[in-house]
Amino acid sequence: MLQGGSDRVTDGHRDASVATLVFRRDADGTRWEKDSIVVEEPLEIRLREGGCEPERFVVTMRTPGDDDDLAAGLLFGEGVIEHVDEIVAIEPPADPRVTPELAKNVRVVTLAPRADRPRARRATVMGSACGVCGRTSIDDVAALAAAARRGKAAPRPGASSDLTISASLLTSLPDALHARQSVFSSTGGLHAAGLFEADGSLLLAREDVGRHNATDKAVGAVLRSRRPCPPILLVSGRLGFEIAQKAALAGVRIVAAVSAPTSLAVDLAEETGLTLIGFLRGERFNIYTHPERIERQVSGT
Amino acid sequence: MLQGGSDRVTDGHRDASVATLVFRRDADGTRWEKDSIVVEEPLEIRLREGGCEPERFVVTMRTPGDDDDLAAGLLFGEGVIEHVDEIVAIEPPADPRVTPELAKNVRVVTLAPRADRPRARRATVMGSACGVCGRTSIDDVAALAAAARRGKAAPRPGASSDLTISASLLTSLPDALHARQSVFSSTGGLHAAGLFEADGSLLLAREDVGRHNATDKAVGAVLRSRRPCPPILLVSGRLGFEIAQKAALAGVRIVAAVSAPTSLAVDLAEETGLTLIGFLRGERFNIYTHPERIERQVSGT
Repeated sequence: MLQGGSDRVTDGHRDASVATLVFRRDADGTRWEKDSIVVEEPLEIRLREGGCEPERFVVTMRTPGDDDDLAAGLLFGEGVIEHVDEIVAIEPPADPRVTPELAKNVRVVTLAPRADRPRARRATVMGSACGVCGRTSIDDVAALAAAARRGKAAPRPGASSDLTISASLLTSLPDALHARQSVFSSTGGLHAAGLFEADGSLLLAREDVGRHNATDKAVGAVLRSRRPCPPILLVSGRLGFEIAQKAALAGVRIVAAVSAPTSLAVDLAEETGLTLIGFLRGERFNIYTHPERIERQVSGT
Repeated sequence: MLQGGSDRVTDGHRDASVATLVFRRDADGTRWEKDSIVVEEPLEIRLREGGCEPERFVVTMRTPGDDDDLAAGLLFGEGVIEHVDEIVAIEPPADPRVTPELAKNVRVVTLAPRADRPRARRATVMGSACGVCGRTSIDDVAALAAAARRGKAAPRPGASSDLTISASLLTSLPDALHARQSVFSSTGGLHAAGLFEADGSLLLAREDVGRHNATDKAVGAVLRSRRPCPPILLVSGRLGFEIAQKAALAGVRIVAAVSAPTSLAVDLAEETGLTLIGFLRGERFNIYTHPERIERQVSGT
């Protein structure tokens, strides 16, 4: 079960393995119904460098799909790679002892040798809602924050530091992201992350049972396309430290969430120059940091 | 910042470190407001066994408060301890080089020596939404599932295997949990986990920025009180593998969530004999596994 089941997967969800009993008091009792369930399976990422045998790096509980993007984005967010060109290949395991079922949930990433690459210290499993798993100590969390600050100090080509957008553009983003999501995900089972250009156009959206995975998939897809990272990231749900860290590192300038941010996310956004938006719903939002990027004149009055 | 800030904490939230700019289109423009932000800080757990120096075990991004319960519940959920009596002490670090600010975010757990204790293989950071962080491989995730199955095979004293509850009792639980939450947490910033007795009374509720932390805090509090685990666990938000695993291990019989479960949660609940309820909202809910514990006659019609 932990190592397969993908045959039942369609677009990140599957039919319930058991018929779901739906209870509603205003109907005449209860009835059995089929329902869809978001798929959660472990993805094990192994790293191979310099001709050595692949070593286990991390397991993340994710929704299958876009696994190569997820691996690339995760390694970038972790600081294991600083550029996507350090990835030579992303492949299933060659080990003949690995069954085809298991192979679906393992990716082997071959890295170009780099003398100053930090030793991959993380050999862990991430839960489906986890983004900074695998650090040994608070010092390591601080190192993630420092990496995000360095990312801000050296914006990548294409990143606009003097971006401004209108409040109207901002409030239009959730509907655009929602329209890109599947019917099922909009019921609440999947998190979404969308990268938007400065004009509000949605470059790409990714979904996953874990919001950090959705963000890694989106950032990984941009990295692998060799395009500059769009300046706006919108995530469904809440916005914790790990999302702010990944956004800052990728070169995002405005990060917005449909729900609440955490204190560490706000602190990191302040320090790294990110504009952080929370509770972006309907015709309202909160700006927590760097409000200068949001034009605040009221139009139409 | 990563190592302090607790002076600003009140009940798991703090005033925004920057004034929040609230935008609403139907008002006359925008205005600056103070807002509350849920606090997220890293907690580093170190393990000491047999007179050795403490070793770093894990960092979890959590909301400060109930840290001893969190540590106990996390170690139990991980299988590091099988009984709370294996914990000799939970203390701040004695190292004089650790500043008071940092010491708030570090707990040293002294364990009684046990020959067959699995080596603590996890030396990791968990994100605020992560529950199975720190495993090295898919095999380790499978081991967590196996531990949950063993927990089911050997229910602890007080666990009722033939529990049944009414649909009315079930639909009353979210309001009871909500009433116990603070005003702020009900805005969406904090997750809650509540343990209920078979008659629907709420034994205890815990809140955290991470739902796995809220569950660990609740289970840890019960363990440390030496009471049997109540048979019903309700969590806000979604229900992934890690919550089902922790519930099964603790001896819970019915686990319910306000939002969607994942495929691995349903699979594990089926295998371990857990009744899994999702989308428990108002007068409706879905039963995914083991429906025999929910009385389904319709009353009052």
